[in-house]
Amino acid sequence: MSAAPIFERLALIGVGLIGSSIAHAARAAGVVRAIAASARSGATRRRVAELGIVDQVSETNAAAVAGADLVIVCVPVGQCGAVAAEIGAHLKPGATVSDVGSVKGSVLKDMTPHLPAGVHFVPAHPVAGTEHSGPDAGFAELFVNRWCILTPPENADPQAVERLAAFWRALGTNVDTMSAEHHDLVLAITSHVPHLIAYSIVGTADDLETVTRSEVMKFSAGGFRDFTRIASSHPEMWRDICIANRDRLLEEIDRYSKNLGSMRKIVGAADSAALEKLFAEARAARQRWLDGEFES
Amino acid sequence: MSAAPIFERLALIGVGLIGSSIAHAARAAGVVRAIAASARSGATRRRVAELGIVDQVSETNAAAVAGADLVIVCVPVGQCGAVAAEIGAHLKPGATVSDVGSVKGSVLKDMTPHLPAGVHFVPAHPVAGTEHSGPDAGFAELFVNRWCILTPPENADPQAVERLAAFWRALGTNVDTMSAEHHDLVLAITSHVPHLIAYSIVGTADDLETVTRSEVMKFSAGGFRDFTRIASSHPEMWRDICIANRDRLLEEIDRYSKNLGSMRKIVGAADSAALEKLFAEARAARQRWLDGEFES
Repeated sequence: MSAAPIFERLALIGVGLIGSSIAHAARAAGVVRAIAASARSGATRRRVAELGIVDQVSETNAAAVAGADLVIVCVPVGQCGAVAAEIGAHLKPGATVSDVGSVKGSVLKDMTPHLPAGVHFVPAHPVAGTEHSGPDAGFAELFVNRWCILTPPENADPQAVERLAAFWRALGTNVDTMSAEHHDLVLAITSHVPHLIAYSIVGTADDLETVTRSEVMKFSAGGFRDFTRIASSHPEMWRDICIANRDRLLEEIDRYSKNLGSMRKIVGAADSAALEKLFAEARAARQRWLDGEFES
Repeated sequence: MSAAPIFERLALIGVGLIGSSIAHAARAAGVVRAIAASARSGATRRRVAELGIVDQVSETNAAAVAGADLVIVCVPVGQCGAVAAEIGAHLKPGATVSDVGSVKGSVLKDMTPHLPAGVHFVPAHPVAGTEHSGPDAGFAELFVNRWCILTPPENADPQAVERLAAFWRALGTNVDTMSAEHHDLVLAITSHVPHLIAYSIVGTADDLETVTRSEVMKFSAGGFRDFTRIASSHPEMWRDICIANRDRLLEEIDRYSKNLGSMRKIVGAADSAALEKLFAEARAARQRWLDGEFES
């Protein structure tokens, strides 16, 4: 793809599914000259070194960010503040610091106090993932045709924002920019509540003793399989997302529960006209969303 | 695939996604010599004739079943009783009558009284589908590597059951046999409740005015997209399923709502240990189900 590097040195803090996919994709696109990485666990550091997907693996986050002009924090959102505290004093002046978290308000709040003046902080969220975790799960194409949402603070340098946007576009994403607050609402609807619901329905099925474990997946083509895939996302990552965006999540769960309660009433009354209307509306809503997907 | 026909003449009552896929697949597998079909609407009959996927298109169900040794009723489950009443007197002695409904208790109850002695009634449910409907949506490979569940009544002729099983295996499915009652419980968990939940979450998102329609799908890779796909299934078909299996559905919705309520409490309390435990259990449950999928 691109031949000219956008950044000289990229540092990845954390090398799970997203971190390793960024390493693969940034190399494949030729958008950085070198990649440094750090990881909490010795096992992950050894595996990343074996995979050869970065140029340098460090034990400390401070060592990884030394000399980097782009630092991307790829850890569960609950750890972003602590990571910022560790790296703040070691950042290269003029460096861009970003992340990949699924909640942006908390990341902005937790990281900003630790980042020195002269460093550009541009939080980001590539909306992409799989049900797999860890450095072996990463692949260069993860971001292709997905969206990356940037939530720069109001005083952000437009050039730094555009440079990070160019980096993400080179990795294959479309880029959108919005406030952290709006991001957290949109993602509550499109991702966080669906995940909680998937976890809940999987937990409900798991309680059931009259259905054998072989039956659950055999017959899950009718819908359940998608839920189990969603529900096998990284537990620690989702724990942090739920806590970081919990006010919004509670509101949305309540709206959803109310909606489900109405639907239960209609099913209980065997009200076929109301049911068909509800189902037809859902189908029409999807069609509107699909039609609107590439509107600006 | 198979060269020797298993049935001479197949009649399909209804030619939507499932009926047309059976026509494609039965022809491709060479398991029937001729296919007759009927459809309620003139538009569907014209389209089926244009597509050339069957040998004869009739306006009445009675005409379609004349001389057929396998009749498969492919209409929403709420119409199965009425169809049985129409075709009962016109069935060839010794013919096998089956269906494709997602609820089996109601189909057994509604159809049996209308079927004459000397006809083999073996209800079936191929667990396969897409979000598309109508005769154009069908394709021969829909059933490959899926499961077809047969729910023969206790007094069913084992040879007739095995012959229908052979037909479905020739179309690419694995075949399992169980009671209608157990089927309806298993499918409530693996399909019906997931569909209701998907309809509900799509309805909830559709109510939200602060998120634009373009945003909903753009950022739905994080989970929501799967729900919208499930929720765009055929409204009339799902209306009938919900009503036919409603007692079981209400029980399961209640169990699920209770589970979601506990999860809401844990999120509200920001209890990170409990959340991570719940999420890790869901992931482990999926792994057990995947491991158990091909156990007998």
